This record gives sequence, C-alpha cells and structure tokens, in this order.
Amino acid sequence: MAEFRLDPRLAAASEPLASLNLSEARLHNDTRFAWIVLVPRKPGVREIEHLAAKDRIVLMDEIIAAGVAVRALGATLGKPVEKLNIGALGNIVEQLHVHVVGRRSDDDAWPGPVWGVGAAIAYDDELLDRARQAVLPAFDGLTLKRA
Amino acid sequence: MAEFRLDPRLAAASEPLASLNLSEARLHNDTRFAWIVLVPRKPGVREIEHLAAKDRIVLMDEIIAAGVAVRALGATLGKPVEKLNIGALGNIVEQLHVHVVGRRSDDDAWPGPVWGVGAAIAYDDELLDRARQAVLPAFDGLTLKRA
Repeated sequence: MAEFRLDPRLAAASEPLASLNLSEARLHNDTRFAWIVLVPRKPGVREIEHLAAKDRIVLMDEIIAAGVAVRALGATLGKPVEKLNIGALGNIVEQLHVHVVGRRSDDDAWPGPVWGVGAAIAYDDELLDRARQAVLPAFDGLTLKRA
Repeated sequence: MAEFRLDPRLAAASEPLASLNLSEARLHNDTRFAWIVLVPRKPGVREIEHLAAKDRIVLMDEIIAAGVAVRALGATLGKPVEKLNIGALGNIVEQLHVHVVGRRSDDDAWPGPVWGVGAAIAYDDELLDRARQAVLPAFDGLTLKRA
C-alpha cells in the first residue's frame, strides 16, 4: 500500500496543527484570514467521493471541528468570524484537501471567495504559538497527535 | 416551526431538479459549467454546523450523488468533468447551500474558483430537458420527488 505524503505545495503554505483521525489539520499561513486546511491521509485520493463512506463521515466531523477551531482562531487574530466558507477545490493541488475559512465582511476578498486573492501574510512565531493554543481544544477527541 | 422557503436569489439563479431527502437539488442556470446546488430544507440554517449530526451525514451522501449528477451533466453539455469543486460559502445568500461544480482546465475560470466569474449563460428549454434526464438517475434512492 502506498504511503501518504503531504503534497509539498500544501506543506509550504501551511503549518501543522494536529493529526486527526482521518486528516492532517494544517494552519494556512496567512494571517489575513482564519483558515485551516484538512488533508485526509489517504494516498492518491483527489475527490471526496474517493473516500470510503465511513471516512466521509469522519471528514464531516473534522470539518465541523475545524469550523469551531477557525472561530477560535479568528478571535485570536482579532478578527471574529462572521461566516464559514468550506471548500474542496483542488484545481491546482490534486491531493484532496478541504479549506475551512473564517470570513468577515471587512476582509480582503469579501464577498468573493478567498482563493487566489492577493498575497499571504505569514504568521510570526509568537502569533503561530497563540494560534495553536487557540485552535487545539476544538480538535479534542478527534486528535491522534498534536503538532 | 418555521417553514422552509427557498431564498429568492437561489430560486432565480437555478432550476428545480429533485427534492432529495434533505435538500432541494437545483440546476444552476449557467451552461458554462456543469453545476448543481443543494439547499437543505431547514429554515434558518446558515452553516453546516447548524444541521443535526444525522442531517450532516445525509448532506454528505447528497453531495456525493450530486457529484455523480454533475459528471453526467458535463457529458450532456459536451464538457466532460475533470475535477469536482464543492463549496459552501454563503457570503451573499445566507441560506445554507452547497455548490457542486464540474471543472475543466479549459473552462472560463480555471484554475480559479467559479464564483463571481463572468456572466451566466442560461439553458434553453431543450437543453434543460436533456440536463434533467441526464442527472436524475444519480439521485435515485435519495429522491422524494422529481421536478
């Protein structure tokens, strides 16, 4: 069986948060938005339909938890979340990944989608630490290993 | 209990396909893309997290079926689907709705997201008929009522 390897483009654009039961939860490295990416650890999977039915249910649970995490992250960034955007696109990076993004009516892309808008502003170490502390409780019970 | 009413903006931009167990399946009225919208019949629900856990599982099943339907639709439009894009945004229309969109590397928005790109090209009656016939088998077993 092939081994899961995180796509290098996803790895470069994000920081590890936690290994959940199905997915790697990653912090998208852009402080403009409270943004978490879930990457199911299933080699070769490009579409949600490629996941086994039981894994799709786990993915749904992890999406809901990531939404809670994104709200906590938004509060930490001083940008309380008004709306969640959830998307599985994969037009550029083939490896299945689900974006969970906190949106605000004053954000740089509102009301359009966030993908491809402007340039990311990276976290510094101190804010990254605070972001991790803020989001990890949301994944309690779904977590195999914390970053 | 409040009654479900389809948001008039969703109604105006789409045509009915079928009433599924949870959602209204609607054809987004834009022949540029094979595009179906699922609208759970739950009054006041804006986020997936607002759905009961059991309804989230039904929604996942309906998303998978809509993906199969979108592939059939793409074939009917002469635009076989290369990639599915699934998104729940709701920045403009608050009522929870999930987009299931078939993408191709030669489509008008590739590789960016489809939302907000250009102007829709409506179906004519003949193509709408063929589209309905193409997609409905994908919803067999999930369907309460066909349009």
